[in-house]
Amino acid sequence: MHTEQRDRAHDLLRSRNIDRALFANPYSVTWLTGFAEPLQVGPGPFAGGPPLVWYEDGTFTLLVLESLDTSSVSIPVIRYPGYTIETPLPGPAQLTKIVGELVGKGEFVAEMQALPAGFLPPRAGPLPIDGWLAPLRMVKTGEELAKLRAAFALADVAHIAAAQAVRVGAREIDVWAAAHSAVQQQGGQRIPFGNDCVVSYRENNIGGWPGDLALRAGDSLMMDISTRVHGYWSDSCNTYYAADVTPRQKAMRHTAAEALEFAISLVKPGIPANEIDRRVRAFIAEAGYPVYPHHTGHGVGASSHEEPRIVPYNATPLEPGMVTMLEPGIYFPREAAVRLEDAVLVTADGADIMTGHLKRPLY
Amino acid sequence: MHTEQRDRAHDLLRSRNIDRALFANPYSVTWLTGFAEPLQVGPGPFAGGPPLVWYEDGTFTLLVLESLDTSSVSIPVIRYPGYTIETPLPGPAQLTKIVGELVGKGEFVAEMQALPAGFLPPRAGPLPIDGWLAPLRMVKTGEELAKLRAAFALADVAHIAAAQAVRVGAREIDVWAAAHSAVQQQGGQRIPFGNDCVVSYRENNIGGWPGDLALRAGDSLMMDISTRVHGYWSDSCNTYYAADVTPRQKAMRHTAAEALEFAISLVKPGIPANEIDRRVRAFIAEAGYPVYPHHTGHGVGASSHEEPRIVPYNATPLEPGMVTMLEPGIYFPREAAVRLEDAVLVTADGADIMTGHLKRPLY
Repeated sequence: MHTEQRDRAHDLLRSRNIDRALFANPYSVTWLTGFAEPLQVGPGPFAGGPPLVWYEDGTFTLLVLESLDTSSVSIPVIRYPGYTIETPLPGPAQLTKIVGELVGKGEFVAEMQALPAGFLPPRAGPLPIDGWLAPLRMVKTGEELAKLRAAFALADVAHIAAAQAVRVGAREIDVWAAAHSAVQQQGGQRIPFGNDCVVSYRENNIGGWPGDLALRAGDSLMMDISTRVHGYWSDSCNTYYAADVTPRQKAMRHTAAEALEFAISLVKPGIPANEIDRRVRAFIAEAGYPVYPHHTGHGVGASSHEEPRIVPYNATPLEPGMVTMLEPGIYFPREAAVRLEDAVLVTADGADIMTGHLKRPLY
Repeated sequence: MHTEQRDRAHDLLRSRNIDRALFANPYSVTWLTGFAEPLQVGPGPFAGGPPLVWYEDGTFTLLVLESLDTSSVSIPVIRYPGYTIETPLPGPAQLTKIVGELVGKGEFVAEMQALPAGFLPPRAGPLPIDGWLAPLRMVKTGEELAKLRAAFALADVAHIAAAQAVRVGAREIDVWAAAHSAVQQQGGQRIPFGNDCVVSYRENNIGGWPGDLALRAGDSLMMDISTRVHGYWSDSCNTYYAADVTPRQKAMRHTAAEALEFAISLVKPGIPANEIDRRVRAFIAEAGYPVYPHHTGHGVGASSHEEPRIVPYNATPLEPGMVTMLEPGIYFPREAAVRLEDAVLVTADGADIMTGHLKRPLY
């Protein structure tokens, strides 16, 4: 794939006596490798960094987040972890380390207009302040809550459209397109739209973008929907059924619904985020199900995944004015999956639910 | 808007004795200002740079491309030009100059993981090679032509859906959503989708994103559609009519169609890009219409606007294997507009049309 392109670039660099180069422009990356960064929705590149191509002595190497599909790429790939629930956003530090090791102390050239300065080896320059605003963003202002409510209202519209589109024979992309259209028509403008739309018989049925897999009787579809309004992101998840709900699906959904209600009941000022995480995981385990491998929740605001993260490592106590998603799920690869998700605003004495999509009836 | 957020950031910076800071993370920018960068389609940030916020002595200033809507922003805004037809991509140089003047020689802090290194004042570091690959990308490989043909086929599907959705009462966003859904359902996956969807009675009826303006009898709708497949962008434009075509619309469309056919007839190896530009503009002028203020065309590939640009300043001769868009239009603000656009592959002795959407009948 794209060998002729790399030959042209190699000839150019060699003709200028350049042995080492770092490409960062996304169009350069696509042209050199065939890799195309997916549409950015959610945490986006800031879970790690942009895809980069390192050139040294005639060899091109793609540096990319490990969650991205590089099956079409025929050059060496260096992958690094992005978002995890074990540590706070390791991706950027990983990429800085990889670039530093590749670059070493020798000279090189770079596409500087697209290359974030923070991924270059440290030199005299501005003090990095990445992440400094994240804690300030946790407690929402009244203005932000209004924007978030508008975004959640559109996500609710998307769920209504999704519920109507789900049927035997419908594909993931059909339901996705119906939901996205409804949101844009309701909003009267283009609306950024995410996140997951996956049938239960996928190997990884926890999340992913819609494809052309069709629903069969007995299958379910998990729709985890984000919409952006005035720069603020909603989030919300529901699980829909192609036909009659099986006893197993019914039992899983009941437990997920109870876990979500339990999670909401825990929310109040002062509770550490990771206490909610621990207790909701325990709830799922006690019900006899495998514990979900993802976060129990996260904040939303200008980004669709932000602080306070409801994860094992985060002991931040909740405060009034924080908005957090809660999203317990149960997954059996290739067989069955359920996730239900609500947003809650932390109030002086508990929580107000901000999402309005219909998760009852439980079937 | 967002004064409470800026107060929090100001307090944090002051508590650390920081007088000057540069914010580049898009979520920081949205949170500090209320400004949300639109969905990226087309040339995207590389017509200029990302939105930045400069903080100095308690004052926050937004630095942004002049084409973006900042009506919701209540802090000082420094605007700079992005894409023009007068000079090659002045935006990045403009932003570098603005940042350099603000930063001066004093110390500052910056969100380095999101700040492109090229926008910082020059220091010892990698030699910038931005733009070096652009000329290499002009002549397409066979593999790239296959990707482009797949993208053009999806754009053709979008036009069929758009034509069906256009009627009196339909809004821009309704037609847009129908076209985007058709593309995603045909493609079986999420497909990035652009560019323009505007009713003829807009003040600026040359381009823009869809809104909730509705078509009335006598109005037209211009749909300029890009789709991305395997990382490669299509492009194409057609103009649709809400009801019966008026004599004025008919005359304008005939001239636009003839101008497009004339442009295509000029394409052959060796002709300078700006000779096509000049002659097509003359064709429109000789027909008695105002000459369009935008480019006559541009290349497509890994980006939706690339070399060879068919603009007054570009004397690059066309070569076999180049793919270029041609898009003459006629515009009367608030009254009437037409644009028709095809893609052509430059061949050994002329041009092959790569777009298949129906621009005849001429009505």
